[in-house]
Amino acid sequence: MEDQSEDGTGQAPRLGARRIYEELKAQIANGIYASGSPMPSTRLLAAELGVARSTVTIAYEQLLSEGFIESRQGARTRVTMLRPVESLPERAASTATTGRRLSAYGERLQVLPRSPQHNPSKLIADFRYGDLAASDFPTLLWKRAVDDTVRRRRERLAYDDPRGSLVLRTVLQAYLWRARGIRCELDQIIIVNGSQQGLDICTRLLVDPGDAVVVEDPCYAMARNVFTAAGATVAPIPADHEGLKTSLLHAIDARLAFVTPSHQFPLGGVMPIGRRNELLAWSQKCGAYVIEDDYDGEYRYDIAPIPPLQTLGGADNVIYLGTLSKTLSPTLRIGYMVVPQELGDAFAAAKRLTDRHSPQLEQEAAAALITTGAYERHIRRTRRRNAARRATLLAALRTKLGDHLTIVGADAGLHVIVWCNAISAGEENQLIERARRAGIGLYPVTPTYAAADAPHRPNRAGFIIGYASLDEHQIERGVDALARVLL
Amino acid sequence: MEDQSEDGTGQAPRLGARRIYEELKAQIANGIYASGSPMPSTRLLAAELGVARSTVTIAYEQLLSEGFIESRQGARTRVTMLRPVESLPERAASTATTGRRLSAYGERLQVLPRSPQHNPSKLIADFRYGDLAASDFPTLLWKRAVDDTVRRRRERLAYDDPRGSLVLRTVLQAYLWRARGIRCELDQIIIVNGSQQGLDICTRLLVDPGDAVVVEDPCYAMARNVFTAAGATVAPIPADHEGLKTSLLHAIDARLAFVTPSHQFPLGGVMPIGRRNELLAWSQKCGAYVIEDDYDGEYRYDIAPIPPLQTLGGADNVIYLGTLSKTLSPTLRIGYMVVPQELGDAFAAAKRLTDRHSPQLEQEAAAALITTGAYERHIRRTRRRNAARRATLLAALRTKLGDHLTIVGADAGLHVIVWCNAISAGEENQLIERARRAGIGLYPVTPTYAAADAPHRPNRAGFIIGYASLDEHQIERGVDALARVLL
Repeated sequence: MEDQSEDGTGQAPRLGARRIYEELKAQIANGIYASGSPMPSTRLLAAELGVARSTVTIAYEQLLSEGFIESRQGARTRVTMLRPVESLPERAASTATTGRRLSAYGERLQVLPRSPQHNPSKLIADFRYGDLAASDFPTLLWKRAVDDTVRRRRERLAYDDPRGSLVLRTVLQAYLWRARGIRCELDQIIIVNGSQQGLDICTRLLVDPGDAVVVEDPCYAMARNVFTAAGATVAPIPADHEGLKTSLLHAIDARLAFVTPSHQFPLGGVMPIGRRNELLAWSQKCGAYVIEDDYDGEYRYDIAPIPPLQTLGGADNVIYLGTLSKTLSPTLRIGYMVVPQELGDAFAAAKRLTDRHSPQLEQEAAAALITTGAYERHIRRTRRRNAARRATLLAALRTKLGDHLTIVGADAGLHVIVWCNAISAGEENQLIERARRAGIGLYPVTPTYAAADAPHRPNRAGFIIGYASLDEHQIERGVDALARVLL
Repeated sequence: MEDQSEDGTGQAPRLGARRIYEELKAQIANGIYASGSPMPSTRLLAAELGVARSTVTIAYEQLLSEGFIESRQGARTRVTMLRPVESLPERAASTATTGRRLSAYGERLQVLPRSPQHNPSKLIADFRYGDLAASDFPTLLWKRAVDDTVRRRRERLAYDDPRGSLVLRTVLQAYLWRARGIRCELDQIIIVNGSQQGLDICTRLLVDPGDAVVVEDPCYAMARNVFTAAGATVAPIPADHEGLKTSLLHAIDARLAFVTPSHQFPLGGVMPIGRRNELLAWSQKCGAYVIEDDYDGEYRYDIAPIPPLQTLGGADNVIYLGTLSKTLSPTLRIGYMVVPQELGDAFAAAKRLTDRHSPQLEQEAAAALITTGAYERHIRRTRRRNAARRATLLAALRTKLGDHLTIVGADAGLHVIVWCNAISAGEENQLIERARRAGIGLYPVTPTYAAADAPHRPNRAGFIIGYASLDEHQIERGVDALARVLL
């Protein structure tokens, strides 16, 4: 075994000394070197092992520093006399009843519906909603923005403001006014790791176990699950072609409502002004907060984006949630909230205790893209590309499947819903499996409903067709294969 | 007003049409255009306002799409007849008692001790622990790794595994074995947004309100606060020069223990093997999990890093927590946990529901640095630099303040504690204020104690002196100024 000397930088011993150390430690643990007994001299052990004495010394020093062995002036190193673990006082049997277990939150997590394993390999077309085309991503612009951020001179590296990068909040403040008509102070903007974290923090701050939370039915399951895991009672209120049916709210008393008024997910309805007023009036009467998730407000194909609830008198109790996951990439994990002024400090404190702040790199790079106008130019480009994908999809569906399908929600966003007019809901999973074997990634509508057998759920198989990650060729081939599965 | 035509891409109306739209909306809201009454024709309004008719048409179309106005075949556009909000059924007074309020968690957050506002401007030397020198950061290496990640071809942009980048977990698995002797499966590694998020997720999964959580006293306040905010009862156990005094555990029944055995924060003690065995035996007897926070294990100046609890028989109930915040930068927000195998799925589910996964960019870039060995070379460089800073600091303190101070924890890490031998604890805040005016950022030990008047807390003013962000000149000048404040 070669001589491996310590380089003096406090680095871990090289493999030779490390192996010796491990071996001796095991022998001490097994009693081969008994508690209190002397260790062999380093010279002797080195000769036995055929290594340099210094190698053994390194191993001994490590054991010494950890307390396995001890040395006394003039005496040989000995194995430390350990206080036997068995002599610890027996605690009363009753106090030993707490076995290891998860918290109530952990238990509730376990019983949430599992999302199916995703295996995207060898698919002709994966219609999974939420995925974006890598070719749409503004790589050069992003690289430039990221490089500028990395190269930026900084005085020191320190934790940032929990609300997030001041630069990003400043450009978002202007962007939100420009694009959505939202007026807010910088302190009302909180940068979060995607809208998912926004939902999570809202729930932690505003909901206690047992509280009621209103959701649309159907709705985004990853939101509903946050409320369920928090121990809330979810109150699913049917949505129709105009979003949440607000006339059904008057009998409900809730702490929080989660809504997607700009573009109901997944059915696609846009909430008109009358219902928005009803929703706000209800929330103010029963003292509820409202989370307004504007998850894809940039993708409207025929008309301009709809002004948010937050601007219609909801500034005191509406939390406006936005994200870059649908315009840039879900892997960046950048979302933002505009919270009521009175809640700004509470949200900042919660964010800080949760994970300090969101990463600086993505925030500053995104800010650069927004400031230069590149972000909005990118949105317009991506909107046109997705409009083209949508047109291809609708034409293909019409051609190949015509009257077999009812298509819903096709005027905005990055997905449509297809209902199969002659196939019952119970066959959804079977069709998904057949589709997978045919090389299609197909995703069911049913999990978006709070209960699969809800009376307002059409008794037809339904699928959420996302198209933003596909090119037109894939869409055509995908619909071909889908037609073979469904017909 | 110039003609501003719609470009047909579904973009928001340009400013002229937008202003008209806002004005009309306000007038409808104020009843100037009464509910149900006809709107002026677009031709007439355009003539009145002196704009192109198409501009008014854009504004009308927006109002139409939002439901403020409606048009019927052959009739003029009218303001929508709104159902008056007052006709909503009065809900019983008793159900209206829930005013808006924070959750119990939100309330507990409010009463946590506030950290003082940080104002680093115009300081000669800011001794804040946790800050790193920007000049230590491996900018070129990081930029190259980040560029490679941004340029990497991807099939699509989709949510990643909640446990984090497979590449990063793979290199960490090897790194942790190499550097810390930890053996684990890839599924046991969870990438989190800094160790702060690790602490938060552990607490949510393993602690219910009212449960006891053992912490060292003094300890890292941002950890203790997580437990307090969760409604746990914190059981602070004194720490001495060898870390947590495990002999005091036998009477305690707890759900969780939070410890820093490699390098007690903030006192600096290293927990010897006897105490580690005691801690593990106690935890297994009372069914407690243990969070082992190895926050700066790479920074030992005299001897090799100590093997973690997790390798000493704690694989079933010890969560090992690590971070890149002290070796690379706190702004990256990269931390990791090695969790017991039985908890892997629960942690993945919690992470997914919390914020899906940590950002892809930093993860893949960090993986590249670790794979090439650049990370470990960087650690050795930074360790040497910090050793030099530490030597400068200790020499300066000895020279300028000599017997006035007792210095603790100087053999590892990125900070020391200085106790002022002749100044009482009660004067800490006053000294901090005087130091600030003298251009020194000085930070008190007291907030690391669960109670300021704990009997084991020395009745001397104490400060946590971080030096990792300072150059040697700043350290010398800082100690000069500090001496003037303290003497």
